[in-house]
Amino acid sequence: MADWLAALDRGAELRAEAGLTRTLRPRAADDAVVDLAGNDYLGLAAHPEVTAAATTALSRYGLGATGSRLVRGSTDLHHALEDELADWLGVDRALVFSSGYLANLAAVRGLTQPRTLLVSDAHNHASLIDGCRISRAETVVTPHGDVAAVAAALAAAPGRPAVVVTESVFSVDGDLAPLAELHEVTRRHGALLLVDDAHAIGVTGPAGAGGVAAAGLAGEPDVVVTATLSKALGGAGGVVAGPAEFVRHLVETGRTFIFDTAPPPAVVAGVHAAVRLARAGDALRAELADRVALAVRRLGAAGLSVSAPDAAVVSVTAPGPEEATAWAAACRDRGVAVGCFRPPSTPDGRSRLRLTVGAGVDRAEFARALDVIVECVS
Amino acid sequence: MADWLAALDRGAELRAEAGLTRTLRPRAADDAVVDLAGNDYLGLAAHPEVTAAATTALSRYGLGATGSRLVRGSTDLHHALEDELADWLGVDRALVFSSGYLANLAAVRGLTQPRTLLVSDAHNHASLIDGCRISRAETVVTPHGDVAAVAAALAAAPGRPAVVVTESVFSVDGDLAPLAELHEVTRRHGALLLVDDAHAIGVTGPAGAGGVAAAGLAGEPDVVVTATLSKALGGAGGVVAGPAEFVRHLVETGRTFIFDTAPPPAVVAGVHAAVRLARAGDALRAELADRVALAVRRLGAAGLSVSAPDAAVVSVTAPGPEEATAWAAACRDRGVAVGCFRPPSTPDGRSRLRLTVGAGVDRAEFARALDVIVECVS
Repeated sequence: MADWLAALDRGAELRAEAGLTRTLRPRAADDAVVDLAGNDYLGLAAHPEVTAAATTALSRYGLGATGSRLVRGSTDLHHALEDELADWLGVDRALVFSSGYLANLAAVRGLTQPRTLLVSDAHNHASLIDGCRISRAETVVTPHGDVAAVAAALAAAPGRPAVVVTESVFSVDGDLAPLAELHEVTRRHGALLLVDDAHAIGVTGPAGAGGVAAAGLAGEPDVVVTATLSKALGGAGGVVAGPAEFVRHLVETGRTFIFDTAPPPAVVAGVHAAVRLARAGDALRAELADRVALAVRRLGAAGLSVSAPDAAVVSVTAPGPEEATAWAAACRDRGVAVGCFRPPSTPDGRSRLRLTVGAGVDRAEFARALDVIVECVS
Repeated sequence: MADWLAALDRGAELRAEAGLTRTLRPRAADDAVVDLAGNDYLGLAAHPEVTAAATTALSRYGLGATGSRLVRGSTDLHHALEDELADWLGVDRALVFSSGYLANLAAVRGLTQPRTLLVSDAHNHASLIDGCRISRAETVVTPHGDVAAVAAALAAAPGRPAVVVTESVFSVDGDLAPLAELHEVTRRHGALLLVDDAHAIGVTGPAGAGGVAAAGLAGEPDVVVTATLSKALGGAGGVVAGPAEFVRHLVETGRTFIFDTAPPPAVVAGVHAAVRLARAGDALRAELADRVALAVRRLGAAGLSVSAPDAAVVSVTAPGPEEATAWAAACRDRGVAVGCFRPPSTPDGRSRLRLTVGAGVDRAEFARALDVIVECVS
C-alpha cells in the first residue's frame, strides 16, 4: 500500500531531475501581471457585456444546470447559444459540451464505426489523441502538416471508413494546417475531416468564424468542427458543429454528452454575449494581427527563434526544458506571464515559450512585455 | 460521403423503433415544473449565498479562467476551494476539474501502471468505464455490489497492482456500495480503492462529507475519492481527493487536468459557498431523508416497484423503455419532471423512472408531485 505512494514519489523525483516539474501558481484578481500566456485572445473574458449576461443568468437560473442536458440541464440559453454558434460557423447544428476536451472525445468517437481508420496529425492536442484512444479504432499518426502522408494513409486503406483528424491552428507553434488540401484529399478518398478550431475561432476567418470557414469549408457535409468556448470566447466549455444528423447522433449516443452535467446557464449566457462581440470584432482582430506582427518583428530582430504564426500563438524555441523554465520564471519575476511548454506537452520533444497575443492587454504594456521577454531570453 | 449521413439516419431509425430516441427539451428560467429529475439535492444551485459569491467573482475575475491550470487558469479561488474540499473530505489534497467526467478519466488513468488490473462494478458510471477504457489496463467487470467477486478477481491476479473501482451511491438505483467490505478486501490484497462519491457528497456522511467518510474511510492512504461539484453542490466541475502524492501526480501527468481550461473562477467561488452551506447543512439533510422516506412510502403503497434508497435517488421500475418514456411524458404534462432511464444508460438493460429528491423544492409541491407520479404510473 505504501508502495504506490513511494512509486509516485520516485516518478516526481525523475521528473524533477529532467526539469519537468509542474507547479500550480494561483493568481489573484488584482494580479498586475501582463498576460501573454492565457487564451483570452479578444479580451472578452472580462468584457462588461459578457459578465453582465452571466450575472443576469445567475440571478435567473442559479449557478449549476442541475442535471445532464437530457434530464434537467438544457435551458433556453443553451439552445440559443447552439443556434447562434451554428449560424456563425455556417453549419447545420452545434452542440455545446462542458469542456472542449469532452467535445473532442465525443466527436472522434462519434465519427468512428467498426473498421474505421483514424488518420491523426502528429501535433494534435491531447484531447484528440485521447479521442482516438477511447474510440479503439486503428490510428495512423502522420507527420505534422504532411498532406501526402495523409493521402498515403487513406490510399492504403481502400474501402474502409476513415477520418482525418487535425487542428486548424495548432496549439503549440500556432501554425495553420493545410485545411483546403486536407479536405481535397479526404473527399477524394470518401473519408471525413474532423477539425479542432479551438485556437482559430474568433481569431481568423470571416467574422471570426475560424479556420474552417477561412478555408471555405464551412457547412461541407463531410467536415465536422470542434472548438472551445474558453479561448477567444472568454468562457468555458466546448462545441461540436456539423451536419444535423451527426449532432443528433451525439445527442443520442455520445457518452461525454449524455453522462455529463450541462454547462452552467451563466457560463452559456456569457459565452453567447462573447459570440456576438466576436462576430462584430473585426477591429479587435485587426489589432490582434498588428500585435502578432509586432511580436514577431521585435523578437526576431533580437535574434530569437520565433515561429511564423497564422493566428495569435507565437512560439519561441528554447534549447531545453531547464532554459524554458528559467526564461518563463525570469519573465514572471518581471511581471510578464508567458507559457512554458516542455515535454510531454510538446509533440516534438522540443521546449519553448508560448506567447499568446491578446487584444485586451493595454497596448503600451504589451510593447513593454516584448522588451522584457527579449531581455530575459538571451 | 452521403453514405455516412444515411448511416446515421438508419441508426436513428433503429433507436426510434426500439423506443430509445432522446430529445433535448430546453427549460425556461420561469419553468413552473416541480423538479424530481435534477441533482440539486440540497437546493444550493440558486441559494443566494452561492449566486452572490459567483456574482462577486464574475466582477473581479471576469468569466473564463483564460487558460489551463498550469498556465493562467489557477486563481486563489481555485486553491481556496481545493483546500476546503480536502479539509471537508478528510484527505491530504483535492484537485478540481472542469467536469466530473474529466476527474474520473484522470483518476482511473492516474492509478493505472503497467500490468494494473482494474476491477470495475457492473453499475459504474460511463465516466469510470471510459476511464478504464482509456487507461488500456485489463479490466474485470464484477457483478453489481458483489464483494466476493471482487475478492476473487484480486485473488486471481496475485502480485499485480490492482484498483477496485466503484461508486458509493450508484446513480441509477440510488443504492450504496458495501464500501467498508470492499476496502477490507482491497487492503487485504494490497490493492487500491477508487470511489466515485458523486451522488453522496453533501447528502450522506458526517457534515455531508459523503459515502467514503460515512464508511470511515476518509483519508485512508489506499483510497482515492472522486466527486462532482454539480449535484448537491449546485455548481459544475469535478474533484479528485486523496493522498498528496497522488494529487501531485495528476498535476504533473494527468492529461485531462493539464490540457483542459480551468473551471471559471465564478463557478469555483459559487461552489465554495455551496461547500460551506453543505458542511453546515444537517437540517437540509434531515429534510431530505424525510422526503425520501415519504416518497418510498407513498409510491410503495401505490403498488409501484420502488428501490430502497440509501441517499436521495429513488428508482421506479418500468416494464420497458416505451412505458418509461410514456410515464415520464405524462408526469411532464402534469408539471412534474422525473428522470427517464433506458438502455444504454442503464447498466442492466432495465428501464425505470429515476426520482431525485431535493430539499429545495417546496414541500407541498413535493407531496403533490408524488401524487402526480402515482396517477401517471399505473
